[in-house]
Amino acid sequence: MIDFQHVLDTIHQTAQKTDDRGKIADYIPELAKVDKYKFGIHLVNMNQENFSAGDSNERFSIQSISKVFTLTMALGLIGEKLWTRVDVEPSGDPFNHLSLLEFEKGIPRNPFINPGAIVVADVLISHLKNPKDEFLAFVRNIADDETIDYNSTVAASEKQTGFHNYAAANLLKSFKNLENDVETVLDFYFHQCSLTMSCAQLANTFYLYINNGRCRRKNTHLTSGQVKRINALMLTCGFYDEAGEFAFEVGLPGKSGVGGGIVALHPNKFCVATWSPGLNEKGNSKLGMLALEKLTTETELSIF
Amino acid sequence: MIDFQHVLDTIHQTAQKTDDRGKIADYIPELAKVDKYKFGIHLVNMNQENFSAGDSNERFSIQSISKVFTLTMALGLIGEKLWTRVDVEPSGDPFNHLSLLEFEKGIPRNPFINPGAIVVADVLISHLKNPKDEFLAFVRNIADDETIDYNSTVAASEKQTGFHNYAAANLLKSFKNLENDVETVLDFYFHQCSLTMSCAQLANTFYLYINNGRCRRKNTHLTSGQVKRINALMLTCGFYDEAGEFAFEVGLPGKSGVGGGIVALHPNKFCVATWSPGLNEKGNSKLGMLALEKLTTETELSIF
Amino acid sequence: MIDFQHVLDTIHQTAQKTDDRGKIADYIPELAKVDKYKFGIHLVNMNQENFSAGDSNERFSIQSISKVFTLTMALGLIGEKLWTRVDVEPSGDPFNHLSLLEFEKGIPRNPFINPGAIVVADVLISHLKNPKDEFLAFVRNIADDETIDYNSTVAASEKQTGFHNYAAANLLKSFKNLENDVETVLDFYFHQCSLTMSCAQLANTFYLYINNGRCRRKNTHLTSGQVKRINALMLTCGFYDEAGEFAFEVGLPGKSGVGGGIVALHPNKFCVATWSPGLNEKGNSKLGMLALEKLTTETELSIF
Amino acid sequence: MIDFQHVLDTIHQTAQKTDDRGKIADYIPELAKVDKYKFGIHLVNMNQENFSAGDSNERFSIQSISKVFTLTMALGLIGEKLWTRVDVEPSGDPFNHLSLLEFEKGIPRNPFINPGAIVVADVLISHLKNPKDEFLAFVRNIADDETIDYNSTVAASEKQTGFHNYAAANLLKSFKNLENDVETVLDFYFHQCSLTMSCAQLANTFYLYINNGRCRRKNTHLTSGQVKRINALMLTCGFYDEAGEFAFEVGLPGKSGVGGGIVALHPNKFCVATWSPGLNEKGNSKLGMLALEKLTTETELSIF
Repeated sequence: MIDFQHVLDTIHQTAQKTDDRGKIADYIPELAKVDKYKFGIHLVNMNQENFSAGDSNERFSIQSISKVFTLTMALGLIGEKLWTRVDVEPSGDPFNHLSLLEFEKGIPRNPFINPGAIVVADVLISHLKNPKDEFLAFVRNIADDETIDYNSTVAASEKQTGFHNYAAANLLKSFKNLENDVETVLDFYFHQCSLTMSCAQLANTFYLYINNGRCRRKNTHLTSGQVKRINALMLTCGFYDEAGEFAFEVGLPGKSGVGGGIVALHPNKFCVATWSPGLNEKGNSKLGMLALEKLTTETELSIF
Repeated sequence: MIDFQHVLDTIHQTAQKTDDRGKIADYIPELAKVDKYKFGIHLVNMNQENFSAGDSNERFSIQSISKVFTLTMALGLIGEKLWTRVDVEPSGDPFNHLSLLEFEKGIPRNPFINPGAIVVADVLISHLKNPKDEFLAFVRNIADDETIDYNSTVAASEKQTGFHNYAAANLLKSFKNLENDVETVLDFYFHQCSLTMSCAQLANTFYLYINNGRCRRKNTHLTSGQVKRINALMLTCGFYDEAGEFAFEVGLPGKSGVGGGIVALHPNKFCVATWSPGLNEKGNSKLGMLALEKLTTETELSIF
Repeated sequence: MIDFQHVLDTIHQTAQKTDDRGKIADYIPELAKVDKYKFGIHLVNMNQENFSAGDSNERFSIQSISKVFTLTMALGLIGEKLWTRVDVEPSGDPFNHLSLLEFEKGIPRNPFINPGAIVVADVLISHLKNPKDEFLAFVRNIADDETIDYNSTVAASEKQTGFHNYAAANLLKSFKNLENDVETVLDFYFHQCSLTMSCAQLANTFYLYINNGRCRRKNTHLTSGQVKRINALMLTCGFYDEAGEFAFEVGLPGKSGVGGGIVALHPNKFCVATWSPGLNEKGNSKLGMLALEKLTTETELSIF
Repeated sequence: MIDFQHVLDTIHQTAQKTDDRGKIADYIPELAKVDKYKFGIHLVNMNQENFSAGDSNERFSIQSISKVFTLTMALGLIGEKLWTRVDVEPSGDPFNHLSLLEFEKGIPRNPFINPGAIVVADVLISHLKNPKDEFLAFVRNIADDETIDYNSTVAASEKQTGFHNYAAANLLKSFKNLENDVETVLDFYFHQCSLTMSCAQLANTFYLYINNGRCRRKNTHLTSGQVKRINALMLTCGFYDEAGEFAFEVGLPGKSGVGGGIVALHPNKFCVATWSPGLNEKGNSKLGMLALEKLTTETELSIF
């Protein structure tokens, strides 16, 4: 049996000795204030045993990791109909996300690139009475943790500088793939991205995806077919233009955020969350990528 | 000597017999109300003799033709510095104007595609106290006609459906190639496009570009080098993705608008304006293109 | 325990009732001659127990499935140095494979798109004395089957119509990412694609990839890290522009060929090969995709 | 009246003082041997008066300038049918000529980009018995000069390194827009590009395009409509990705070649040829561009 605590400790020690931590995202001013030398890791196994090292209880901005939660909630609300408005293919191309959207007539490549997540946000707004409140309640429920909350300063900071997201939302609107108005959708979107959670909270919230759709409170939110699909999407599309590299080096489904968080999972085995705010040139946490590669290499627990 | 009146009459008669008038632009609801069977043409020569046929005094929405006037005013204000913010090359590509903007890091291909004209509008706003008033005064001056005005209903109609322009402006903003805020710039832009003029007014306003930069009121607005450049730009970029075709078939610099207007000119010889609201699949007036091709074929007055 | 034979029989029966079989690849004249109503499936588990249904022993042209074998051999020869000449990211874009190659300066997106496989072939040619003979011997070895052979008629047929591959190889050459001359490389490439194998042979040859790199003859050809990476690549890039869809619907690493074959595998559990010559619009076997989706849905044996 | 000799002398003196001559094309080894400090200019007016300065009688490789001659001959052979196989729009995009070809299904943007010129060469081969001989005779005829010839060393040099042209030709073939085989077409194409002419010869050969299609020997090769169209194409597409810039700065139709030659013309007024082997980053002669800009600025003889 694998001694997870020992593995996490080793990873933590290696991380502490690593000087090159990448570059903190500075396009969202509020995120630029974080201490670059933070590092946390937390793992939960199927028996809900918890292992951790470093700053695993410190909360940070989960950013794009929230896209997994909105996708989960949207699938619960409208099921497979969602796939008429967003595709499931990797985006591939680093330089022209908006052009792909133009070329493909307003159907985003997948729900984890920004335009795709904006469409998913639009679905939630159309089907919920109080979208921000109900989504927050949903995340607290699957996390089994009522302390999780938005960071409205971060949300406001993104709104002021989120011109690229405004461009994407308006382009979707021009292709009639946005039902609600741009301001409403982006207000929701900037709030979902501002959710603040620790590695410990993230790993436990993702328990649902290794446990056939059943969360820690034993509510079933997804069919096992839907879990399979979300996990497949995380593997093929979860890491921006580095999805292939992550599958190749780490070999687990996962999702990263520009706040420096990464969650990865092995169905029926474990989920793990890491946090280190410095990013590599593709926008994924530099130390987080190394930590997870080390984890699957040492434990030989990749899905491949 | 060419009998222009006879040529225009012949063109008008041919136009009246043409059933296939193309398709009126319907993405701006206000424009969709125009009578498709209107046709006007007006020509002014160097001696300021006027020739006309059809609905040449009926006013219509000049739309993108206004981009020539904003470019002229911007060159007057900041001169060649303008070219650090917008390029002078044809856009070529029909399907991905925003992607080119992404690829080329926020520098629009030329001042006659929408993103380029939005940058030019931004320049005017930065350098004028009352941009809408001063621009209107400028157009009235070069037109020698104080009755020219905006159509605020058309401007409001475009604002409500102009999501693609909002996408472009936000993308420019994300690349820091927009100094003013998106709403201010687009409010100006939608107003400039809503200018309402007749063929007679347009032809006389463009007199400046065949007369070395000197308008009908004998004010000099451009150096002869600047006139040469604006005319060159009209030739290479004045007709969306059909610029090559227009140069090839008509052989004159010109500019079209989705309201169905086209202005074309022969330096030191004449300017001519046509109007027919139905567009071809490239977004240029169907009958206008045919009329101008007929004009240069019959008179052998192309610049080539 | 899963009764694989029963599952395969059910799949076979469903297949036989399916009228819409897609369209046989006709751009290679020799392939167009195959009977569209063939269907075979074969599964091998970790204990090397074999299960089959339909035309599982009939040989067909494996085409792109051969790219997994050349990649395996190249990794054995030059190891991770290979990744300086070819990337590991999904290609994403359906319409511009050559343009991506231009844009990314001659580095193909991954070893399973044609330009990537041509680079891998070039590596083999540079490192082998008799490339075609040695590669064939390699495949026979991992297959534990000396009857496997090239089909020189198919190879010749592809050579005569393979203009797109000639374009790709010349483009690679222009970027100096091809060491040998175009004719030599493509002669090898067309031969590797012409390999003729049955579902039974394919499933047994892929045993290596579920068994940590150890083939049926108990030779170890790959480290477990390399196996993980090849399997990850099959998942993210194995199905042309439908890789996301296959991961999403089937949830297994795999590789398809335009001859109508598909191989998929579950590490440490089983490999399965299907054959049905009719293709869907993305170029993957229509019935093969359905069969594998049924297999993982019924057995719940996806890796996710 | 303009003193052309004085203007050319001034331009020549300025050129001699210019140190930064750009970079000689080195991808064709044979071209790389030319002396970078050569400079010639030659002008012919409507009365066939000749003016020259510098190395105006030294012969160089005309390269892409030959595309104007093949286009002229092809129009004479099959007329406007040519435009079903090649378009007349600027290519715009600097980075993906082959991708545009893929996207637009094998129809090159215009006859002056390489794929377009390869299609024109294919037309000549299909309609001539001895294509290379007959094309050479045609050029000698419009040049009124029997000493013009191919340089077979240059043609052979291009063949050995012309992988990008091989890629283009094969791509055209894959789209069925090439009737003859790739080798035959490229052999012709490399020969047409290897034509060796002086500025004096080029200017006199282009007399046809300022004289309504009638060459120096008084044979009429083109209708005045065809001349108009070729001149329009030179203006919109004659300078690779710098066509807009050339129209903007110089304001004349023209064509450049990587051998350092440029020809430009003013219909019914004059043609002028320059030669300076160093190229700017867009592949056009650096000093040639400056010389022509000076010429039209000083004489105010642009077509705009």
